[in-house]
Amino acid sequence: LDATALSQWHAGPTRDAILDFVTRVTDSQGPDYVPPPQRIAVFDNDGTLWCERPYYIQIAGGLDYFVARATANPALRELQPFKAAVEHDVAFFEHFVAENRVFDLVKMLVEAAAGETQAEFEARATAWFADARHPRFNRLYRQMTFAPMVELLGLLRAADFRIFICTGGGMDLVRLVAEELYAIPREHIIGSNMMLAWEERDAGPTLVRMPAVVMPFNDGPGKPVNIQLHIGRPPIFAAGNSNGDIEMMRFAAASQLPHFNLLVHHDDAEREYAYDSGAESALALCADRDWCIASMARDWRIVFAQD
Amino acid sequence: LDATALSQWHAGPTRDAILDFVTRVTDSQGPDYVPPPQRIAVFDNDGTLWCERPYYIQIAGGLDYFVARATANPALRELQPFKAAVEHDVAFFEHFVAENRVFDLVKMLVEAAAGETQAEFEARATAWFADARHPRFNRLYRQMTFAPMVELLGLLRAADFRIFICTGGGMDLVRLVAEELYAIPREHIIGSNMMLAWEERDAGPTLVRMPAVVMPFNDGPGKPVNIQLHIGRPPIFAAGNSNGDIEMMRFAAASQLPHFNLLVHHDDAEREYAYDSGAESALALCADRDWCIASMARDWRIVFAQD
Repeated sequence: LDATALSQWHAGPTRDAILDFVTRVTDSQGPDYVPPPQRIAVFDNDGTLWCERPYYIQIAGGLDYFVARATANPALRELQPFKAAVEHDVAFFEHFVAENRVFDLVKMLVEAAAGETQAEFEARATAWFADARHPRFNRLYRQMTFAPMVELLGLLRAADFRIFICTGGGMDLVRLVAEELYAIPREHIIGSNMMLAWEERDAGPTLVRMPAVVMPFNDGPGKPVNIQLHIGRPPIFAAGNSNGDIEMMRFAAASQLPHFNLLVHHDDAEREYAYDSGAESALALCADRDWCIASMARDWRIVFAQD
Repeated sequence: LDATALSQWHAGPTRDAILDFVTRVTDSQGPDYVPPPQRIAVFDNDGTLWCERPYYIQIAGGLDYFVARATANPALRELQPFKAAVEHDVAFFEHFVAENRVFDLVKMLVEAAAGETQAEFEARATAWFADARHPRFNRLYRQMTFAPMVELLGLLRAADFRIFICTGGGMDLVRLVAEELYAIPREHIIGSNMMLAWEERDAGPTLVRMPAVVMPFNDGPGKPVNIQLHIGRPPIFAAGNSNGDIEMMRFAAASQLPHFNLLVHHDDAEREYAYDSGAESALALCADRDWCIASMARDWRIVFAQD
């Protein structure tokens, strides 16, 4: 590996540390060699692989859906989350995040959006993703991925890592675009989801989306639990950006294998956003443990892919 | 593909049908072409990839563990499943299967075996698997896989299928040996499991196995639900051997893609076992839908790999 391997990262300690780790674990003669079956990498999605401000992309998609539902059925306009969607009251959703009540937010959204078949959901979400745009940057949401992180995925893939997304966001939404955006197959997406039911209908058996969240919710301590359930072993590379990623990183650190934890720090108000809110404990932990903090402002040559 | 591709299968309609299907879905010029991302294959394990008689291999491992626990703590000898284990009362366990109460059996075993850390379980199960032997054939359990089916896995893998096991048996037990036995990585094993908890202990954070089954239980209608949750799309190839595999096969058939369902029929009392018990509905459905029934007696040159 030479410096051209992460060309979208500035030279410096962060890039050096990543390249050094990948070099060490793939050197079959070295003391830190990790055989390919154990080369598991997990990435949070919102704020780690794509932009999560001014609100989760997930919520952007939900807003349009809830407005459509409330338009067809005006009685819904007095109920949440339909009321907030119709009034474009984004602060209503932000309160949950600021108050560290993301599970309550997901539960509300899941209960409000339940009832579709899996096929109906996929058709609706695919159509939404085709042309929905970010309100500040006016880019397609599918172009809101962080180019240096997508480059990092490629570096790990070339080093025989198996790469998973482990997100508190909606598993099914991410699955619809992960193959295109990240070259990550659907079965490598771990996320939040509603329970599904197998129903016998006139048209045949059908998967229906139910008003209940699959537990454990995939945030904080739910992440290592779901990583074990879906993957069967700890990651040796974990990347996140918020307090909800702490346990996932600690799972990597507890693996007794060489490991690397990376925290994306949003400190670039000009090119993206600058905020520590929701990441205070993670930043402190990474500083304390000497885990790698990637500064968007300092370490990334570009944030989003060039058009 | 020519007939050497499944050399452990006898020539005949079953082998022809499998080879024809794989040829069609991989022919990029043909009408039945399926792009690689959608080439998902799912295999039941007990009775489909390895022998499930006289009792599930899972239970064999549990018996030894429960005997050890009851030896260390005699008070357990009056409780089930410890009592049956100590008395080697295999009929006690078989009743659950014959009465179609496999979930109750799994629930009992999960509740009795809970409390270990994930690392403790893996060390114990790995040690058990190293030398445990089948009571009739006196082969190591790890040599009780069906050689023609393992050959079929290789055929599908070479055709760019991604292969998953979808078993009612214990996910974590299968994961410990699937890489060696089937060349299937841990993250491609879907099965029954206990809930896990992330506990802060003096030695650090630890995954602990809890006395509750992850729902839905991975049998019958739980199989398509869990396939969707773990993989994100229906299989186009599904193989099973019992009534618990019916919904998984119907999921493949409902995919609107070219698909292939295969039912292993245990009709070879001499080389393995002959029984339709627990498979009556699946056999009838496959006959009705013209899905492929593989007869062990007629279609397989060998059952177990040669020593």
